Amino acid sequence: MDAMVDPAVDETHMAAAVELAWAGLGSVEPNPMVGCVIVRAGQVIGRGCHERFGEAHAEVNALHDCLQNGHDAKGATAYVTLEPCCHHGKTPPCADALIAAGLARVVIAVVDPFEQVSGGGVARLKDAGIEVDTGVAVELATNQLAAYLKRVRTGRPWVIAKWAMSMDGRIATATGQSQWITGESARREVHALRGRIDGIAVGMGTVLADDPLLTARPSGPRTLNRTLNRIVFAQTRVPPLDRQLVKTATKTPLWLIAGPLVRDADLAALSGHGARVIRCQNPDPIAMIDEALLRLGGRDNPGGTPLTNLMVEGGGRLLGSFAAAEQIDEAHVYIGSKLIGGQAAPGPVGDPGISQLNRSISLRVGSVDRFDDDVRIIYRKASQHR
Amino acid sequence: MDAMVDPAVDETHMAAAVELAWAGLGSVEPNPMVGCVIVRAGQVIGRGCHERFGEAHAEVNALHDCLQNGHDAKGATAYVTLEPCCHHGKTPPCADALIAAGLARVVIAVVDPFEQVSGGGVARLKDAGIEVDTGVAVELATNQLAAYLKRVRTGRPWVIAKWAMSMDGRIATATGQSQWITGESARREVHALRGRIDGIAVGMGTVLADDPLLTARPSGPRTLNRTLNRIVFAQTRVPPLDRQLVKTATKTPLWLIAGPLVRDADLAALSGHGARVIRCQNPDPIAMIDEALLRLGGRDNPGGTPLTNLMVEGGGRLLGSFAAAEQIDEAHVYIGSKLIGGQAAPGPVGDPGISQLNRSISLRVGSVDRFDDDVRIIYRKASQHR
Repeated sequence: MDAMVDPAVDETHMAAAVELAWAGLGSVEPNPMVGCVIVRAGQVIGRGCHERFGEAHAEVNALHDCLQNGHDAKGATAYVTLEPCCHHGKTPPCADALIAAGLARVVIAVVDPFEQVSGGGVARLKDAGIEVDTGVAVELATNQLAAYLKRVRTGRPWVIAKWAMSMDGRIATATGQSQWITGESARREVHALRGRIDGIAVGMGTVLADDPLLTARPSGPRTLNRTLNRIVFAQTRVPPLDRQLVKTATKTPLWLIAGPLVRDADLAALSGHGARVIRCQNPDPIAMIDEALLRLGGRDNPGGTPLTNLMVEGGGRLLGSFAAAEQIDEAHVYIGSKLIGGQAAPGPVGDPGISQLNRSISLRVGSVDRFDDDVRIIYRKASQHR
Repeated sequence: MDAMVDPAVDETHMAAAVELAWAGLGSVEPNPMVGCVIVRAGQVIGRGCHERFGEAHAEVNALHDCLQNGHDAKGATAYVTLEPCCHHGKTPPCADALIAAGLARVVIAVVDPFEQVSGGGVARLKDAGIEVDTGVAVELATNQLAAYLKRVRTGRPWVIAKWAMSMDGRIATATGQSQWITGESARREVHALRGRIDGIAVGMGTVLADDPLLTARPSGPRTLNRTLNRIVFAQTRVPPLDRQLVKTATKTPLWLIAGPLVRDADLAALSGHGARVIRCQNPDPIAMIDEALLRLGGRDNPGGTPLTNLMVEGGGRLLGSFAAAEQIDEAHVYIGSKLIGGQAAPGPVGDPGISQLNRSISLRVGSVDRFDDDVRIIYRKASQHR
């Protein structure tokens, strides 16, 4: 057992474990991203992360890495970003693997709120005589796990609003003219993001105006082979059958969030073309959003797999309703270098939006990046780790 | 004389001269910022810049620096960011100083378009047998001199539009609620900028709604003691005499850009309180802007000193008119971390703005900075150095 516990050393190793975990983004959902670092006498002897849904967890991969490197984990300390599981899921419990390997101490960043774990992993380790510390680098890990934590705690997916606007916050001129607000390399980033999320939502206005395909067309070396669910909020109208979204529904899932006023026959026709339907009871857009998020984030949705990350791309009305519903957790704002002006030129987030300034949504700046003459700011909810 | 000319070495020394010149920003206007580096046998033996209006020019300061350091500039190369002057202004001609000091070679970034120089400095140096090269690091220097070059070439000051908006491009809610969109440290930056410019313009709507003082209240070590001209565009109405701007007009200059419909008696009353009046012939806001810029950028304005940099702070209507007049050269866009939404929520740049997207103003991203959860993007016109 390590003789002394140095909080700064703990933070450093946990930060390294968080760094490892990012490799799972877009591949492990609905599982959480998890990273693990195993240290003995100040030396890192094993590293691992949860790489892909259904495959080995981070702890097991890190223990395996120890063996590969010719190290014995007996008496060592494991740093794990999320509480090790104690239930039999797709894989055996990680807590048991750590106990079997003879770890002396397990340091955990975040205690898993998932009801089948929720302190059970910590208890199991302690029962086996292992020293357990929690809450190390908790802000860093909570930030990484924010989408998973929201889904587990509230049953709703993490919502990423995305829009592109001119330097003065417009998406078209006052006469309605619009075209690419941002350049090629900013648009590549959007496709890269689509390749890492579970769902992408648009309103009917966007379906009718743009006939979008809404698939992920990421370029570059890391192309994930995952399912992107395409979701249309259809309050009163549904997409005509000749839309690209409908024609590709058997290949890439298409979901309809249908208001109570939509005709059954229209939904039946779309179901016949492979669309999955979530029928809402309340025609109010804010209520529809809440109902839809609870369905999409649960296991009883028509796809059977809860969605962890959902991107809302527009139009302005749908974004305005998500804002009013206080269901925007993250925003990817692309700011182009055109100046448009004109009081009637539409902004990216429409009605109803927020009318009382003290109720406006305040997010934190996560990152600022430049793509040629476009700037992307990623905003996120402040992490709630207490 | 240096035996060989190495273009990369020339660029490096000129970049250093540009760097030196920045120290004059906000102190030298209406003169240009200029920097000078003197090099012999690869060694920098003198550095100087134009520090303050009315004081010594960069070349003279650099020659003086050589002497101070015990170096003789004879046979050396001088790198100057702007063509040395050849006329007697507030100081004797710099070309003569370089000739007298026995420089072998003078490298110049930008040839001065000012009519009393305009190649005359180059000719004078060449006549004295000095080797002269121009156009070195011309993009860097042109960028630095953009405001001076615009004023000399077009007779109009460089216009910096400034606004703060929410992450979705709003300055208030749909019901008109507004308060600070950005935080304390972003607002400090605005005051620092006010401390480096010659004039700040607002529309009558802003005067009536906010009763602003529009003085520079920069904090920190470098507080310049310079005149900030406060300019009100008064198309049809003028500020009431009890406004802060009017009450302080004898201390800090207040200018009225008055449309032809404003009553003479109103202007006379304001003149009596110390305001300077520029009466425009045309009531059209775009024509008024052009007329005003020509007056403000010329020597026949009521203050007698041409304005080099003019910041337009709003409101939206004035910014929209400057956009339509295609007279925005630079934009300082502050983006706060609030999300507001609502289609009727006003944007920062109002009417008329640009109705044809292909006529929208495209600027280049100059810099991106973060102040807590606010982001500032500075956009500038692409430098025109050909």
